[in-house]
Amino acid sequence: MATTAFCRDTSCQFFSDGRRKVDYVLVFYQRKQISVRGGDRLHRLSAPPHPPHRLSVISNGSSPLSGPVGGVGQGGLGCAAGQRSAGDGEVCVDLAVEVELEADPAEGEMVLIREEFEARLLEAGLEMERDTEVRVYGPSFTRLHVPWQVLSREAEFLKIKVPTKKSYDLKQENGFSASLSEFWRKVNQPFQPNIPQLGHSTTKQLSHCFSRDKLHFPTPRPTPRPTSRHAPRYAPSPTHLLHDEWARYGAFYKYQPVDLIRKYFGEKIGLYFAWLGVYTQLLIPASMVGIIVFCYGCYTVDMDVPSLEMCDKQQNFTMCPLCDGVCDYWHLSTACGTARASHLFDNPATVFFAIFMSLWVATFLEHWKRRQISLNHSWDLTGLEEEEDHPRPKYETILLQKRQMMRNKEKKNEKKKKKKKIETGVEKLTWRDRLPGYLINISSILFMFGLTFSAVFGVIVYRIVVSALMAMSPDPETKSNVRVTVTATAVIINLVVILILDEIYGAVAVWLTELEIPRTESNFEQHLILKAFLLKFMNAYAPIFYVAFFKGRFAGRPGDYVYVFNDYRMEECAPGGCLIELCIQLSIIMVGKQLIQNNVFEIGIPKLKKLIRAWKGKGISLEEREEQRARPPQQWNLDYTLVPFEGLTPEYMEMIIQFGFVSLFVASFPLAPLFALLNNVIEIRLDAKKFVTELRRPDAVQAKDIGIWYNILSGMGKFSVIINAFVISFTSDFIPRLVYQYMYSQTGTMHGFIDHTLSHFNVSNFRPGNAPTSSYLSETTVCRYKDYREPPWSAEAYQFSKTYWAVLAARLAFVILFQNLVMFLSLLVAWVIPDVPKNISEQLKREKTLLVDVFLREEKEKFHLLQSLFSSKDLRSSDTSVVATWSLNAPLYLSPM
Amino acid sequence: MATTAFCRDTSCQFFSDGRRKVDYVLVFYQRKQISVRGGDRLHRLSAPPHPPHRLSVISNGSSPLSGPVGGVGQGGLGCAAGQRSAGDGEVCVDLAVEVELEADPAEGEMVLIREEFEARLLEAGLEMERDTEVRVYGPSFTRLHVPWQVLSREAEFLKIKVPTKKSYDLKQENGFSASLSEFWRKVNQPFQPNIPQLGHSTTKQLSHCFSRDKLHFPTPRPTPRPTSRHAPRYAPSPTHLLHDEWARYGAFYKYQPVDLIRKYFGEKIGLYFAWLGVYTQLLIPASMVGIIVFCYGCYTVDMDVPSLEMCDKQQNFTMCPLCDGVCDYWHLSTACGTARASHLFDNPATVFFAIFMSLWVATFLEHWKRRQISLNHSWDLTGLEEEEDHPRPKYETILLQKRQMMRNKEKKNEKKKKKKKIETGVEKLTWRDRLPGYLINISSILFMFGLTFSAVFGVIVYRIVVSALMAMSPDPETKSNVRVTVTATAVIINLVVILILDEIYGAVAVWLTELEIPRTESNFEQHLILKAFLLKFMNAYAPIFYVAFFKGRFAGRPGDYVYVFNDYRMEECAPGGCLIELCIQLSIIMVGKQLIQNNVFEIGIPKLKKLIRAWKGKGISLEEREEQRARPPQQWNLDYTLVPFEGLTPEYMEMIIQFGFVSLFVASFPLAPLFALLNNVIEIRLDAKKFVTELRRPDAVQAKDIGIWYNILSGMGKFSVIINAFVISFTSDFIPRLVYQYMYSQTGTMHGFIDHTLSHFNVSNFRPGNAPTSSYLSETTVCRYKDYREPPWSAEAYQFSKTYWAVLAARLAFVILFQNLVMFLSLLVAWVIPDVPKNISEQLKREKTLLVDVFLREEKEKFHLLQSLFSSKDLRSSDTSVVATWSLNAPLYLSPM
Repeated sequence: MATTAFCRDTSCQFFSDGRRKVDYVLVFYQRKQISVRGGDRLHRLSAPPHPPHRLSVISNGSSPLSGPVGGVGQGGLGCAAGQRSAGDGEVCVDLAVEVELEADPAEGEMVLIREEFEARLLEAGLEMERDTEVRVYGPSFTRLHVPWQVLSREAEFLKIKVPTKKSYDLKQENGFSASLSEFWRKVNQPFQPNIPQLGHSTTKQLSHCFSRDKLHFPTPRPTPRPTSRHAPRYAPSPTHLLHDEWARYGAFYKYQPVDLIRKYFGEKIGLYFAWLGVYTQLLIPASMVGIIVFCYGCYTVDMDVPSLEMCDKQQNFTMCPLCDGVCDYWHLSTACGTARASHLFDNPATVFFAIFMSLWVATFLEHWKRRQISLNHSWDLTGLEEEEDHPRPKYETILLQKRQMMRNKEKKNEKKKKKKKIETGVEKLTWRDRLPGYLINISSILFMFGLTFSAVFGVIVYRIVVSALMAMSPDPETKSNVRVTVTATAVIINLVVILILDEIYGAVAVWLTELEIPRTESNFEQHLILKAFLLKFMNAYAPIFYVAFFKGRFAGRPGDYVYVFNDYRMEECAPGGCLIELCIQLSIIMVGKQLIQNNVFEIGIPKLKKLIRAWKGKGISLEEREEQRARPPQQWNLDYTLVPFEGLTPEYMEMIIQFGFVSLFVASFPLAPLFALLNNVIEIRLDAKKFVTELRRPDAVQAKDIGIWYNILSGMGKFSVIINAFVISFTSDFIPRLVYQYMYSQTGTMHGFIDHTLSHFNVSNFRPGNAPTSSYLSETTVCRYKDYREPPWSAEAYQFSKTYWAVLAARLAFVILFQNLVMFLSLLVAWVIPDVPKNISEQLKREKTLLVDVFLREEKEKFHLLQSLFSSKDLRSSDTSVVATWSLNAPLYLSPM
Repeated sequence: MATTAFCRDTSCQFFSDGRRKVDYVLVFYQRKQISVRGGDRLHRLSAPPHPPHRLSVISNGSSPLSGPVGGVGQGGLGCAAGQRSAGDGEVCVDLAVEVELEADPAEGEMVLIREEFEARLLEAGLEMERDTEVRVYGPSFTRLHVPWQVLSREAEFLKIKVPTKKSYDLKQENGFSASLSEFWRKVNQPFQPNIPQLGHSTTKQLSHCFSRDKLHFPTPRPTPRPTSRHAPRYAPSPTHLLHDEWARYGAFYKYQPVDLIRKYFGEKIGLYFAWLGVYTQLLIPASMVGIIVFCYGCYTVDMDVPSLEMCDKQQNFTMCPLCDGVCDYWHLSTACGTARASHLFDNPATVFFAIFMSLWVATFLEHWKRRQISLNHSWDLTGLEEEEDHPRPKYETILLQKRQMMRNKEKKNEKKKKKKKIETGVEKLTWRDRLPGYLINISSILFMFGLTFSAVFGVIVYRIVVSALMAMSPDPETKSNVRVTVTATAVIINLVVILILDEIYGAVAVWLTELEIPRTESNFEQHLILKAFLLKFMNAYAPIFYVAFFKGRFAGRPGDYVYVFNDYRMEECAPGGCLIELCIQLSIIMVGKQLIQNNVFEIGIPKLKKLIRAWKGKGISLEEREEQRARPPQQWNLDYTLVPFEGLTPEYMEMIIQFGFVSLFVASFPLAPLFALLNNVIEIRLDAKKFVTELRRPDAVQAKDIGIWYNILSGMGKFSVIINAFVISFTSDFIPRLVYQYMYSQTGTMHGFIDHTLSHFNVSNFRPGNAPTSSYLSETTVCRYKDYREPPWSAEAYQFSKTYWAVLAARLAFVILFQNLVMFLSLLVAWVIPDVPKNISEQLKREKTLLVDVFLREEKEKFHLLQSLFSSKDLRSSDTSVVATWSLNAPLYLSPM
């Protein structure tokens, strides 16, 4: 990979002539032993097998800040790395890099390849400067400068839009809406980052595709010449601005300077942070509503009839024992605590919250679409065509090998038969070449699915066995704490397993995707994301799904329990219902995962790596240290020691998994958005710090949208509707309560609900050994259990009762109602909120009109000029010459440069 | 509206000089009495309040066919009306027309306005020719010619893509797939329309945005000059080709010549027919599967246990009477016929068919997307930006009136206060101006909904009352035919009501949309479509929904019937189930609607109108007739007598409503696709005939897609999933059968199912007067009725039984399962089928690469030239002059014209 180290300072901005700017720095790492083959692949520069049409040239982000002289609006901060749309008058271009070749040529070959690569750079018109004394080993740096004509050629070719001198007034609101927006601006003022020229501007410059022919027409701002880039440098550099106004925990309450981020890191990273910002911002209302719902639960806990009835010692339901033999009958009132806790999360407000959150997801997606379009507009990306990716070097290598093989085969064939010569132009890899990769992929993914499920099953077995063992313990202290101990330890085990598998799956996904040999980088990314998402999603959610939908449903009934390993009864839910367990599981996994991942993986491990590198660095030889003393390290030497950037996939993935917690099971845990919000406020600054101080400046990549992540988000939104429908109707007690109140209750109130949900069991029907061996409630003849079954005295004893089927029908009807209602409302939300914000669409219209005006005026001028020149000739019969004449006249319009 | 009459012949193609082509004909209709105000609004030409930037100029579709000389691929047929992307070397441009002004100025004013309009046309560079002798009244024709420089200016401005000389080979399949596609081509040969140059071509020309500056670069084919349009005319004209190969019932089995349709009628109409073709084509597999499913029903009808049991006279179920008093008990075996008929449509294959059709809808939508992209590519529409619509004249008029009013108000204010002067630049109509329109809209729509529902209810009441009356009739003949008579007459009444309301609603929707004062034509269209769709959908489907989901569900039970108007029992479904009634309703409405609409509304009424016009034409004065004899009518006189084109909305609407029959209730009527297919095969040719021979040639409108219709289709597809789920689980007997077989049947077979579905009723529990007054089954003590209720001897007599709830739960579970499974499968289908066909995406890639090559080569040439010219100068420090020099050199490249 081309390791690129960027200037973060202005001291190294120019070639030794002090005029030409350093736009890009290439690093070539030479191992000490030249004769040894193979080795460190990362630090190699090599030419691709096909001559690259374009080469990577990225300006270095120095800041000839226009300050008070130049700038209205977006200009002024100079060219960001690889930023394609330029600030005022400066045209910055990046051209895709192709420098990775995974083949393993000898070191001597490497040097040749490097020379060829550099020769091609020169051929493409770039200028180059190397360190004068070339060391034999270690990193050596090559600095590149891109001259104006190359920049302008590429800018024209890529149809980059540049702002023109022509500007227009943005529409001003008037009357009430104006004062409202003014008020809003004032309220927002303290939350705005303190970035110069980022304030509210009332004009916007018209942008137009850059064209050298039309340099006269929508004239870019002056200073197209590289020499004029020596602008006064009395404003803070973008790095410092980013550091102070963004990558600082103290700025947690502020908006992000997204334009600046994009200018410095490119569109793709800019979009990530913009997305993260929108997501975090929209989490605020969601968590507020979540808190209100939770408070409603707290407030009504003392009025909730079912939990009052459960706590009522006078009702005195004798429950069937929780385990065979050693467990005794017990009174339901002892489970009062869980019943009250359950109510906090299992109340009618939760249903409202689930609907609210589904609509919130729809709103979030729509809002993001609008934001994206706004950003596209202000970043001049509208009309940008997707760049065709170049093939990955790995792909090219394997294709080369295949070609070689085919040629050898052909030669053999020729020798043998000398007639049947098939022209096999191997153009691409077919599915046959990829078959082994696919097979390994499928089997590995199946294996990892199995791994995840067995981990979940293992924890279930752990729970069953440990609770059985603890129940048998003679110590009453142990006995009373069975449920708490077992649940807590099991969830922690779950969490640890999830964290470990998460890291493993991340690495495995990369490995598997490499095996597929995707053709282009974007193919690679897509396949990787899908795979990693599938694996990590399964991993994070499998235990939660189990608790939500399966736990307690296969436990059987007294007298007919279900056993695993012949000895252990399947686990049941707590007497308060399964929802409270789901809630505990969810909260611990969500909070624990975020805390540990943030602290350990994102802060701890990088620090550790740095320490290790620093410690290793002490081991350099004496002469090197002397050399270092003689020549202080340049900025690129320093930047080279930073960690290389490895893509946004892990960042997005973390957020998407979190989004799942916020959307998928939100019906059972209304505080999830709050925890997500708290995490994200930190996450933004953490990521910012990482990007600004710890990573090498990434190659800027142009992007119009967040790509496949949007589809994943929208898919999760759809999935969350059905999941929440099932959680409400099957995991919570919402439907049974409704059914009781409207179908069975004599008084129309909830009184008697608990009695209604408990079936009767005649203890004489216990199988031998299942009944409690010793009981202090020895007079018990009938115990109760939570299910809707016929009583022992019925003809169909212990069969499902009519109530069971009625409740089941109600549950299912609710699922249908909820799912279709919410889907319809989501569609409505998506339809009502226009994708393009109104002000943007108005601006686009005005820009179009302005362009028409400019075009027509120019047209007319041309025509008049023509008429005066050729007034005698018949224009109609000599159209061709007219065209030629117009072109001849073009230079007349090229004056004001 | 600007009435445009087009030449359909070559005799009127040119101005009197015989050189300039007639591109467009304007008609100005002058009433006889000049002094009278008001009158016929349709035939007026008037200038819009704002000077139009661009004016409507459309070439007349003559055919300088390149024949053997010119043409590979798509070129050759000349410019279609308003076609923006041109054939080889010819650039045809259309420019939006703005000629409608609904205000009512006096006739004198009209002439002034007309003169201004024509002056603006001249100003825009158009050339004009009028008839020499100008009659005082009647239509007068103005012919327009668009010179080359106007065409090329607009072509450049609109970034129209033109094919260049540069062509590339399309990828050839090899090996097996080549012979396969060759075989396929041969099989398809008889179905291809016989159009020259439409064959399989192996190369495609590279297209590029038209640019006068770059006429040298991707050189368009020769003959840019209008004079050179005198091409030999030995090939059939497009009109004749369309007539012979498309607008003819004999060609019903052929593909449509879509490219030619687009060339002659423009993209929008081309897309409509392409869509209709794809839809019809995909109906073939659907109707084949439908026939198979139906045949399966026919084949298994003798093996179906439930219907055998129902027909079995030995089982002898005594059923409760169907009406009070006069009706007797009856034996279920008498309903044998309907039971057998029911099985034809209500069998397990139907479930499969419902799933199949849902996936078919998804496939159809995806397939259309691909086709659309292919067409976009071959019609060079990729990268086309949506044109901003001009405001509608009506909108402008009302805005003008508002401005006038505001100005008057201001003047008054000024007089009064002379200080508070608010600058009110009225820029647009606000919701306040539209409020009355909206209110009328909402109330009218609600009223029409009410109308539809009361029509449905009226038919229900008709059915109830007539069956009650007929049951009371003493004639046994009448009695035995009650159900058949009532059902048949009711459905026919329904059909008539639907047809009448359909026409009314269509007209009302237009009127309501006018009241909303939409700003642009496309706004108008969208609002109209949504409104018309809503109304017509309700109208067509309300009775069907009633039968499917409500009929028979509110009838009550013996002893507790539900009555309307105190006297009449609510209607029940036939003994065979509601599905058969749904099937009858659906088939009669669908087939009847199509037959009547096609024959009466699309063939009959236009013919009638023509007759009336011809009859009226006989009443012209003697002098006129003489005049006609003296000067034979020109083509435009003839074309002017044709019916003006009024948009595609009715055509699409008819198809969309049909699509609803095919998708929404397909579970109950598997033959729907077949009937739709038969209808469409005729419909295509019917529409084609209409467009070619009966309508004035429509203004060509550019379009990339079918717009809102796609969304409506996709919405109906989604809706159909849930509707079919409900039809299968609630209307059909599928779920009760499954439940019986797996939960209740002793033998695991269906034997005993009929007995299981019939509840018992003790006749002593009849209310007074409800029991049959005289019965030949006088010994009856218990009669049976179809419901799941407890028997009279149960403690909860006549309450819903446990079976009822179990079946209900199963039904609901099936809905959830079906809906989610089918939605998932549809998503999968949409995801698996790529939107862009592979060959198109490959072509796009190759075109991009080729353009890069051309660009780079040109760049290099320029550079070398430059170097040779300025070899001594330092290029870097004089970038500006370089740019200027390049432009100076441009004429060098302009030679080959």
